Amino acid sequence: MGRRHQTVSFLSDYGLEDEFVGVVRSVIRSAAPHVTVVDITHGIPVHDVRAASLALVRSVQYLAPGVVLAVVDPGVGTDRRALAVEVGAEGEAVFVGPDNGLLAGAVAMTGGARRVVELTETEYHLPAPGPTFAGRDVFAPVAAHVCNGVDLGELGPSIDPITLRPGLLPLSRQEEGKLMSEVLWVDHFGNAQLNVDPGDIAAMGERISLRWGMNQVRTGRLAGAYGELKAGEVGLVVDSYGLVSVALDRRSAAEELKLRPGDAVTLEAAS
Amino acid sequence: MGRRHQTVSFLSDYGLEDEFVGVVRSVIRSAAPHVTVVDITHGIPVHDVRAASLALVRSVQYLAPGVVLAVVDPGVGTDRRALAVEVGAEGEAVFVGPDNGLLAGAVAMTGGARRVVELTETEYHLPAPGPTFAGRDVFAPVAAHVCNGVDLGELGPSIDPITLRPGLLPLSRQEEGKLMSEVLWVDHFGNAQLNVDPGDIAAMGERISLRWGMNQVRTGRLAGAYGELKAGEVGLVVDSYGLVSVALDRRSAAEELKLRPGDAVTLEAAS
Amino acid sequence: MGRRHQTVSFLSDYGLEDEFVGVVRSVIRSAAPHVTVVDITHGIPVHDVRAASLALVRSVQYLAPGVVLAVVDPGVGTDRRALAVEVGAEGEAVFVGPDNGLLAGAVAMTGGARRVVELTETEYHLPAPGPTFAGRDVFAPVAAHVCNGVDLGELGPSIDPITLRPGLLPLSRQEEGKLMSEVLWVDHFGNAQLNVDPGDIAAMGERISLRWGMNQVRTGRLAGAYGELKAGEVGLVVDSYGLVSVALDRRSAAEELKLRPGDAVTLEAAS
Repeated sequence: MGRRHQTVSFLSDYGLEDEFVGVVRSVIRSAAPHVTVVDITHGIPVHDVRAASLALVRSVQYLAPGVVLAVVDPGVGTDRRALAVEVGAEGEAVFVGPDNGLLAGAVAMTGGARRVVELTETEYHLPAPGPTFAGRDVFAPVAAHVCNGVDLGELGPSIDPITLRPGLLPLSRQEEGKLMSEVLWVDHFGNAQLNVDPGDIAAMGERISLRWGMNQVRTGRLAGAYGELKAGEVGLVVDSYGLVSVALDRRSAAEELKLRPGDAVTLEAAS
Repeated sequence: MGRRHQTVSFLSDYGLEDEFVGVVRSVIRSAAPHVTVVDITHGIPVHDVRAASLALVRSVQYLAPGVVLAVVDPGVGTDRRALAVEVGAEGEAVFVGPDNGLLAGAVAMTGGARRVVELTETEYHLPAPGPTFAGRDVFAPVAAHVCNGVDLGELGPSIDPITLRPGLLPLSRQEEGKLMSEVLWVDHFGNAQLNVDPGDIAAMGERISLRWGMNQVRTGRLAGAYGELKAGEVGLVVDSYGLVSVALDRRSAAEELKLRPGDAVTLEAAS
Repeated sequence: MGRRHQTVSFLSDYGLEDEFVGVVRSVIRSAAPHVTVVDITHGIPVHDVRAASLALVRSVQYLAPGVVLAVVDPGVGTDRRALAVEVGAEGEAVFVGPDNGLLAGAVAMTGGARRVVELTETEYHLPAPGPTFAGRDVFAPVAAHVCNGVDLGELGPSIDPITLRPGLLPLSRQEEGKLMSEVLWVDHFGNAQLNVDPGDIAAMGERISLRWGMNQVRTGRLAGAYGELKAGEVGLVVDSYGLVSVALDRRSAAEELKLRPGDAVTLEAAS
C-alpha cells in the first residue's frame, strides 16, 4: 500500500450549472469517505487547457498535501492518455488528469515528476455507459483509490516522465528597449496579468507606455496597490503572484481597455 | 432512534450569488456537525422542477449513502406537502424535499419509497419570520435531524407512497420508421441529450437525419467520442448516461443548432 | 491559547471563475486541517461592501459557531486596517476581515465586539509577492490560526471597538402617511426586499401603492406566499427575513419592474 491522503484539490471546466462537479465529489465521497474535497475552481473556460494550466500553476504552492484532480479534457474518449503523476520527495502529492499539457507546469513547480503511470487498470475505474465523462468514471475513482493508499503501480504501467505532454508558458522578450509581453490571465476584478516580472521593467521608470491591439496606446503608472490609483488612471501593479498586472482602481481594466488572455502587449519607457 | 447518516447531498435552484446555499449548509453544520454536505448543483434554472428531477435521476446512483436534500420549490408557502422519503432495503437513503414531482424519478431509480412522511412536526423545523425559505426553515433542519438518527416517524404522519406526485419523464416513440424524441438536457458544453437509447436507433445505420424546429434538418454521424468528429460535423455520441446526445467537437451543438431542453427532435435513417 | 474552532464560514466577492476561493480554502486546509470551510457566498458584486454587509446580516444568526471570514476589500494594500473581532459572551465567534464597514452590522447582531485586534503580526500571515490578495496572505492564515487556538492578542494590538468603521443600514421613514423605503436586496428569484417591517405598513390595508423611479406606479397586494399571487399581480410578501419584499409568482419582480438595490420606493394605501 502507498501513502494515504486526506485531501483532493479539484479543478475543472465543468461549470456549476450541471451536476458534473457534484457527481465527481459524490464518487470520491462514496469510495473514500475520509477525504475532504477542496474545489480550486470549476470556472475554467470550456476546453481551455492553457487557462487551466495557468490556474494550477498559480494555485499549486498553496494546495494542501494530497491528490490534485484536474480535468479539462477536450480529448476525452480518444487516445490521449489518462495519468497519475507523483511529485515530492516523499510522494506528498499526486496529480490525476489527462495528458494534454494541463499538469506539466504545476508538476514542474512542485519539483518534477517522481513517478508517472497511465491509468489503464479498469478495475480502479467505474463502469461507464459512455466514454465522455472520464472525470466521473476514471479520474475521480482513481483519486479516491490513491487517497485510500492504493500504490500508483496498481493503476497501470509506469511511463517515462519525459513523455508527458508539456505545457506552453509564453515568455516575454526584450527587443530594442521594448518588452514584448502577453496577457496571461484576466481575473474576476478585470485585472490583466502580464508575463512580466517587476525586474523586467525596473529600468523603464515609473511611467510606462503600453501598446496593444490596433494601435491602442496608454500610459501606465507603477503603483503599489489598486487603491493608490486615481480615477481612470491605468496602473501597473505587482499582483499577488509577483507578476505585473494592468489595473484600474475599482473598475475592470480588461473591460475598459479591451484586453483579453493571449493578447500581446508591448511595454516601453514613456517619453 | 433511526440510522445515523454522514452525508447530505444537496441540490437546488438557489444559485450561488446569494447566501441561500450557504445558510442551508450552515443550518446543517450547526445541527449536525458530523455531517459533510456535498453540493450536487445549485444551478438548476429557477423553478424548473423538470430539470431538477432529471439532474437527480442522472446523479442518484453516484451519490454517497445518506440524505438527499432537493429543493426546487415554486409552491413554497402554499399547501404543497413537504416530505421525507426513505429508500433502500435498510433505509440507506432519505430524500427530503417538496412533493412536486422533483423526487419521484430518483426515488423510483433507487428501488422505490420504503416509507414516506409529511414534515408537519414543527419542533424539528426552525422558527421562520416568513414562509418563503423552506430550505432553511424546514428541509435543512429535517435533513440534519435525520442524519442525527431521528426516526422518520417523529417528523410527521406517514403517507401512502402512491400519493407522491409523479415526475414526468418524456418517452420517445417509434412512428413509421422515425423516432420522435425530445431534448432532455443541454449540458455546460452544449451537448444536447435526447431521450434516445442507442438500441432505439441501431437499425438506422451510421448516418442519421435529425429534424427539429421550423424545418431544421441536419445529418448526424454516430461517433464514439467528441474528438472523433470533424470540424462542423454533427455527431450522435452515446453520453455518460448511456443516452444519445447531439454534439459537435469542442463547440456547443445546442448553441449552433439552436436546440433547447424540451425541443422535439425526429430521427430517421439518412437517405 | 484561546478556544479552538471547527468551522470557518466564508463570504467574498471573489466569484467562482478564478481560483481565489479555492486557494483561500487550501490555505486554511493546510494550516488547520481539522476545520470545515462553509461557503456563505462568493457572488457578492465586486467591491460592493454594502451588499456584503447585508448578506452577512441576513446570514449571521444561522452560521455555525467559529470563525467568519469576510473579504470584500476594495482598499486592499492601502492603509485600511485588517481586523479580527471576537463576539459572544464566551468568544463563540471571531470575525476576520477588513475594517471597511463590512463586519459592523453582523458584529452588532451578535451582541457587539468583545475584543478587536488589528492584524499586524506578520508571523501569522503568509509571505506575499504582492499586496493585492490579502484573503490568501493575511485573512485566511489568521482564520486558520484562530481555529487552532491562537489567542487574538497574539495577532496584533487591541483596538477600541468604537473605532470600527460602521456599516450603513438605510432606515425607512414615515412622511405624511407615506413610507419612504429602499430596495435592500434583489435575490436570485428576482424578489426585491425593502427595508420595511410588516408593522410599518399594517395600517395601509391590503392594497398598497408603490412608486419608484421616473413616476413608476403599481399597486401591490399583501400575500402570504408567492404562490398566492395571480399571474402578473404584484405582491408584497413577508420574506424569510421578516421584511416586506416586492414579488411576482414564478417571475422576477425586479426584472419586470426594473427595481435595483438602492432604489427608493414610496408606499402608501392604495386609493
